[in-house]
Amino acid sequence: MGDVIFMPLTVAIGQLNPAAGDLAGNVRKICSFVATAREGGADLIIFPDRAITGYGGVDLVNRQGVVEEELLLFEEVRGASEGISVILGSERMGSLVSEGSEGDVQAHDLFDCILNLKGVRVGVLRGELSVDEVSRYGQGLGVDLIANLVARPFSVGGRGRVMDRLTWVAMECGVGVVQVNMVGGDGGFVFDGGSSVIDPGGVVEFAAPQFVEGVFIHTIGSKTELPPSLSEIEVVYDALLIATRDYLQKNGFKRAVVGLSGGIDSSLTATICADAIGPGNVTGVSMPSEITSSESREDALLLAENLGIEFREIPITTIFNEYLRTLREEFGMRVGGVAEENLQSRIRANILMAISNRFGHLVVATGNRSESLVGYCTLYGDMAGGFAPISDVPKTMVYRLAELVNETAGFERIPGRVILKEPSAELRVGQRDTEALPPYHVLDEILKALIDEKKSVEEVIDSGYESEIVLDVIRRVRESEFKRRQAPPGVKIVSSIKEAL
Amino acid sequence: MGDVIFMPLTVAIGQLNPAAGDLAGNVRKICSFVATAREGGADLIIFPDRAITGYGGVDLVNRQGVVEEELLLFEEVRGASEGISVILGSERMGSLVSEGSEGDVQAHDLFDCILNLKGVRVGVLRGELSVDEVSRYGQGLGVDLIANLVARPFSVGGRGRVMDRLTWVAMECGVGVVQVNMVGGDGGFVFDGGSSVIDPGGVVEFAAPQFVEGVFIHTIGSKTELPPSLSEIEVVYDALLIATRDYLQKNGFKRAVVGLSGGIDSSLTATICADAIGPGNVTGVSMPSEITSSESREDALLLAENLGIEFREIPITTIFNEYLRTLREEFGMRVGGVAEENLQSRIRANILMAISNRFGHLVVATGNRSESLVGYCTLYGDMAGGFAPISDVPKTMVYRLAELVNETAGFERIPGRVILKEPSAELRVGQRDTEALPPYHVLDEILKALIDEKKSVEEVIDSGYESEIVLDVIRRVRESEFKRRQAPPGVKIVSSIKEAL
Repeated sequence: MGDVIFMPLTVAIGQLNPAAGDLAGNVRKICSFVATAREGGADLIIFPDRAITGYGGVDLVNRQGVVEEELLLFEEVRGASEGISVILGSERMGSLVSEGSEGDVQAHDLFDCILNLKGVRVGVLRGELSVDEVSRYGQGLGVDLIANLVARPFSVGGRGRVMDRLTWVAMECGVGVVQVNMVGGDGGFVFDGGSSVIDPGGVVEFAAPQFVEGVFIHTIGSKTELPPSLSEIEVVYDALLIATRDYLQKNGFKRAVVGLSGGIDSSLTATICADAIGPGNVTGVSMPSEITSSESREDALLLAENLGIEFREIPITTIFNEYLRTLREEFGMRVGGVAEENLQSRIRANILMAISNRFGHLVVATGNRSESLVGYCTLYGDMAGGFAPISDVPKTMVYRLAELVNETAGFERIPGRVILKEPSAELRVGQRDTEALPPYHVLDEILKALIDEKKSVEEVIDSGYESEIVLDVIRRVRESEFKRRQAPPGVKIVSSIKEAL
Repeated sequence: MGDVIFMPLTVAIGQLNPAAGDLAGNVRKICSFVATAREGGADLIIFPDRAITGYGGVDLVNRQGVVEEELLLFEEVRGASEGISVILGSERMGSLVSEGSEGDVQAHDLFDCILNLKGVRVGVLRGELSVDEVSRYGQGLGVDLIANLVARPFSVGGRGRVMDRLTWVAMECGVGVVQVNMVGGDGGFVFDGGSSVIDPGGVVEFAAPQFVEGVFIHTIGSKTELPPSLSEIEVVYDALLIATRDYLQKNGFKRAVVGLSGGIDSSLTATICADAIGPGNVTGVSMPSEITSSESREDALLLAENLGIEFREIPITTIFNEYLRTLREEFGMRVGGVAEENLQSRIRANILMAISNRFGHLVVATGNRSESLVGYCTLYGDMAGGFAPISDVPKTMVYRLAELVNETAGFERIPGRVILKEPSAELRVGQRDTEALPPYHVLDEILKALIDEKKSVEEVIDSGYESEIVLDVIRRVRESEFKRRQAPPGVKIVSSIKEAL
């Protein structure tokens, strides 16, 4: 391990939560962060990649005029950065650097540029560090510090791998690394921040907290106490909460409405909403039919009371009967079967959408990843909504999150019976999810192998699952693709692993 | 212009309509085309790009095992091609050539390879010919004939530009060109075929018909009568028809159900369905409310009679009233406004989906591109469906298509009143589209400028439109993005121009 090189450079991490497409608003925030950093004595402030456009502005950046607008806005940043150097990343223009009065900028092969500041050579690089490329240089990299600007979508288990890589690069090349990451929910992804400074010996000397926006000032070479590290499931809960909060906020919604079935998915979703935007801004609606058990009705009410959200019960029986009568008398059609099950789910969606249209609530959909992948959900029914917080959360993880909620609260905030009872869509008398699907722990393992690990059906069967079950799962996944194409937006939690790393 | 060089080579064009992901089925068809070509005396058969996987199999080709499967299947094609050379394109592996007993294959800089066959040097190239690259070679290209394999999504006006380019390349380089294009609907696009042979003087010596699958045999150097050329609007109608037919067929649906409002969008959509899969396989459902005019009800019935499709009328009034009563009594909510309008649209969707779930019809959605872009449509209401044939057709083009239908039929197959009456969603008494939107000819021009030509708002205003109208249009486009994200799949007709050329 190399010695820690003392570099009397004070760096501010601009851990920014930009809004996709709101270029002017993002630049206002960037300028205020620059002022804060300067007041805090920083020589340099580093922002994440895509700081001006936001992450979701990918379509936008291909639009005529946006490149020009981004450049003009960066000149505003430059104008506001007297006495301090500023670095930020742009999807179309690479790394943008305002060198300040102290610094100067040189071109470089590997880096987007090198900023010389107070005798420190800062190599600026957008996007994930390529270990292959960096390792070719090793100790001959020719910089003292790497400023690495990223906008890395959060994924379960992703952070450990990133930190390993940063540590490896620092030690291999004998340089310090400052990696600045975006924070907040944007464009179908969530960003966890957690920007960090690694010393040339591979030791983390500073880390900004995860999921918190702000300016974090650190003098290179000093060692600061690190924020307490969260468990994997705590991080996931925070990710869902921030994603939900930002989706509502960035799309101009103040209130959310959630259909409460008394089941675990809608209970967790309502809890996330209450924690994200405050219980006073959430309405839970129970819409029982004649099939709905009294336990489910009680549990929906109890959950709403525990969360402190508004609760309404709107029975759907008479509307449902009127559909059945109309279809029978006008069409000669006895509904029955899946048509009858889906009809109930769609009546509930219509009611929630009517509330949304009338009062401006966002309808928050409650489906999880496991049921979405196998199509165990109703298009225009329980799939309806403006945002689906847990749509990328496997059912087994839904249970872990519900248990975390209760542990954190110190009481059964999500009623214990909701967690313990056997899952049922309650669209037919006596219906149970396991009539149609394998138990969720088995289903989730098979889905992980087939979808996330891209194993072939044969490999999955060879690893010990019944071929009949595996073939049924893959058939369901294929046949329900048309439903997922019309699903509401959600936030990638599991599915972004491959894309992100 | 160069002289026509006589090359006694007989080429078969394998104008194929593959199904995305059905690799084995596509290869069976390829082998049968190879046999037909051999029986017809061809020395060589050329297939389009992505012949084995189909166009929509892009996700699929990234899956483990698919590359191996495609290679194995090409060995089957090779085995079935005794006495004839075969060329086809693959997304992952480039041009695949079975040289046959007569031919031999060489590597090349510009071309994927060169096939020497009966003294003719055939340069094989996947994807659109790059004029820049080819022109560098000019007369020194070193081949006699270019075999160009494409899978080019159809777009309005695209064919003329392609033919200009092919002619230019032939003349510039003094070579013949055979361009083989895919045909049929696949993965959100439609392909028009129209494969053609250009002589070294730039003259089209053969053209396969548009929208027809088959083996077309042509001896290079001879001149065949060209198929009659279709008007632009005839081509669009054929494109929509083929896209609809193939979407249903490739997804295993035999029957379609369409909600008939008596308006022009649903009338055109039902006509396309009837022509695509036969009137006996189409059900039209009129779902009047108290707001629906008697004219609309009559026009829906008259259209169904003209088309010869099954017709049902299912009034939604009692269901609608039951929603209003339930929401009033259980929630204390007077619905009214947009909530009330959307509720009617969503009741209709529920009825169509119940018919779909009960009898297995595909619900065909009736929305056009103009209203989709400005969000003048109801999510989970008129936007509901498995396929949306005219979702990329501007409203002004909907009128031209309806007029074409009637001209072709020689009578008012789509009732004249449907074409003449002022457009209305009929979700509120006296409602007219023009209360909310500019007249459609103006709206379509503004949308074309903003969306297709990517002009800035300022440019569009400067070109002579009222700023208030342009700003309202762009606001509507932005605010309705969330609806389009949940729209059913359709077929790109206008929007693919940029992607395709």
